Amino acid sequence: MTDLIQLGEQAKKGARGLALMPTKQKNDLLLQMAQMIKRNQLAILEANQKDLDQATENNISETMQDRLRLTPERIHTMAEEIIKVAQLDDPIGKVDHMWQNEDGLLIGKKRVPLGVIGMIYESRPNVTTDAASLAFKSGNAVILRGGKEAFHSNQLLVELLQETLTNAGVSPYAIQFVDDTSHETAAELMRLTDYLDVLIPRGGASLIKRVKEQATVPIIETGTGNNHIYIDKEAQLAMAVDIIVNAKTSRPSVCNAAETLLIHSEIAPFFLPSIEQALVEHGVSLHADARALDYLETATLADETDWDIEYLDYILAVKIVDSLDEAIDHINQHNTKHSEAIVTDSYSASQRFLNEVDAAAVYVNASTRFTDGSVFGFGAEIGISTQKLHARGPMGLNELTTTKYIIYGDGQIRE
Amino acid sequence: MTDLIQLGEQAKKGARGLALMPTKQKNDLLLQMAQMIKRNQLAILEANQKDLDQATENNISETMQDRLRLTPERIHTMAEEIIKVAQLDDPIGKVDHMWQNEDGLLIGKKRVPLGVIGMIYESRPNVTTDAASLAFKSGNAVILRGGKEAFHSNQLLVELLQETLTNAGVSPYAIQFVDDTSHETAAELMRLTDYLDVLIPRGGASLIKRVKEQATVPIIETGTGNNHIYIDKEAQLAMAVDIIVNAKTSRPSVCNAAETLLIHSEIAPFFLPSIEQALVEHGVSLHADARALDYLETATLADETDWDIEYLDYILAVKIVDSLDEAIDHINQHNTKHSEAIVTDSYSASQRFLNEVDAAAVYVNASTRFTDGSVFGFGAEIGISTQKLHARGPMGLNELTTTKYIIYGDGQIRE
Repeated sequence: MTDLIQLGEQAKKGARGLALMPTKQKNDLLLQMAQMIKRNQLAILEANQKDLDQATENNISETMQDRLRLTPERIHTMAEEIIKVAQLDDPIGKVDHMWQNEDGLLIGKKRVPLGVIGMIYESRPNVTTDAASLAFKSGNAVILRGGKEAFHSNQLLVELLQETLTNAGVSPYAIQFVDDTSHETAAELMRLTDYLDVLIPRGGASLIKRVKEQATVPIIETGTGNNHIYIDKEAQLAMAVDIIVNAKTSRPSVCNAAETLLIHSEIAPFFLPSIEQALVEHGVSLHADARALDYLETATLADETDWDIEYLDYILAVKIVDSLDEAIDHINQHNTKHSEAIVTDSYSASQRFLNEVDAAAVYVNASTRFTDGSVFGFGAEIGISTQKLHARGPMGLNELTTTKYIIYGDGQIRE
Repeated sequence: MTDLIQLGEQAKKGARGLALMPTKQKNDLLLQMAQMIKRNQLAILEANQKDLDQATENNISETMQDRLRLTPERIHTMAEEIIKVAQLDDPIGKVDHMWQNEDGLLIGKKRVPLGVIGMIYESRPNVTTDAASLAFKSGNAVILRGGKEAFHSNQLLVELLQETLTNAGVSPYAIQFVDDTSHETAAELMRLTDYLDVLIPRGGASLIKRVKEQATVPIIETGTGNNHIYIDKEAQLAMAVDIIVNAKTSRPSVCNAAETLLIHSEIAPFFLPSIEQALVEHGVSLHADARALDYLETATLADETDWDIEYLDYILAVKIVDSLDEAIDHINQHNTKHSEAIVTDSYSASQRFLNEVDAAAVYVNASTRFTDGSVFGFGAEIGISTQKLHARGPMGLNELTTTKYIIYGDGQIRE
């Protein structure tokens, strides 16, 4: 069994050096990491083939195998993503403003790394390089625990990143890998309170649930998105169709895809047939409530569980509501606080929706698919937070930092 | 046993109304709460007398009784603190800036309430009105669970605040009280994941520890301060004496008081006798390491546990170090990440200390006693966070909020 205490102690050492590393040195090392990945394409493909062979042996679905599969292009993209992180603004050391208080103390809030970040994640190997590069640029040591499916790929990727650091005479402990994919070791990592400043789980709903229940270290919950599109009675039909089709079908397996369509009863009779036609053309099955069923030809009757499922598939729940209030109530009761959208031409409906829906990202007249760090302009993201503390929505470099107050005095004592 | 589920459901309703309440109305209600407290001074004193009688019966120490005791002045101050909160800037609704992304989406990050805040706290009744007013102003419903010592005082105070809301035709569920001080109910509150957005424990180290171990709701750890003053070899003697005396003795029972003095070996022989004299005059006992003991007349030998104790008393641990590195290492190993100070005239030592010490507040040439929301200019605070996620250091109104992304589109779908 992996000695997590040892990894933790090494990570603390790595973190201390990294916290003080100049931006230029961090960027140079990131560029060297990207080169290292590119130069070792063949070895990475070989390691990945081991994972794919194992997946075939274990009868893993083709969809899952595709998530796992690396190609020369995908490896090139991984390296390019690291280069992008090198190009991002470094948040560390920033002091937005300082003020002098009435005692004459000069007080500032300085942005500093969190320290040691733990990541528990599933299948896709590119999460390894994404998380490592973001943690590194934000001055944090990282302990990576990937899924067993991508074990060989992940392990080699971390070795290459560590080799880059060692070659440059820098401690390799800034980026470490848990070479044990047992549930026991994962559980131990979740309780590594003396070493981890935060644990970020990234994966399916069951992983997130397990981490929430078992972790004693601070966590940032990411990902699950039971997202709604509400078509208001003042919506334009063409826009409504485009947005719902895009939100459901452009990439059904991701967390910012739509899972439920709510539609106002006044327009349902006219809108639902057009919406159904467009969705069916894209291979979507509809699970509709009894009222919506009247206007749909291909739908099956939804049951109460449909309102809470993140299908991540070509399935959409459909429900008729009689008012904006009913739509907002339904969303706030069933959503996972990720991304929600209204389609409307009513100013007041748009404002009420923005104000009253509780979610990380609330849209008017746009697809929920835009909730993404690169779309928002953060360059890259380590995940999308669905919790309210610390960070909410796409988490870029800034969300991997904390602050400390620095106070300059000249002998002040308190009355 | 209190029905916490019911309190939780009511709090959610209260939170929804409060989140949308205009600032002017919140401020008016806060001013009315302050009036209500002032008008009911006699009833509050009576309720407090019940708590004091019980404390006498239970042989509670005079120090603890003093923390518990309300006087006409203290009640007046409680009301004045509520008025101060009314005068603070309302963080809710602020959007620092909006940007248009390459898809033409207008994206902003809007400050919104957390939702429902739980508070578990000990003894001092003024925490009730402080926490209630800060939560209210920041648009959050609050569920207050005070200690059994102040039960009657706390209960009446919450009744008065609720009466103010009811009189104004507003839901009283914004401020609720758990009228059951059992550990079982506290433990249930710590696991009220469907209703609490955050739980803030405020009290002694054992309370914080219990909450950390038992809570499944997100928590913000507050308070414990094992704080150090490091006297560098380039320090001025008079400033060093003033700062250490102030940090230790101006209010030993609070979390920003100093608990350990670290002193450079080069100056220890000359500085320690003067420092000892000043501290002994203030009634402080010293627990010193073997080397420091040589220069001290009244000290006893410290053991390893002394470096980790938050005495909250007229006791100070003293240790000689041979370098700034040794001081920083000792602090980072033993501190609780609260407040740390260096006394020095060396520019490079001051910068290294600020950069390398890991704490919420790091001081050069000032007493640690300044770590406080009002000193920092936040008007009031609900506690001092010693964790790294979400908030660090004194938490004012802003730290009781989160954000949501609001996105204005005109039909955008994602490629």
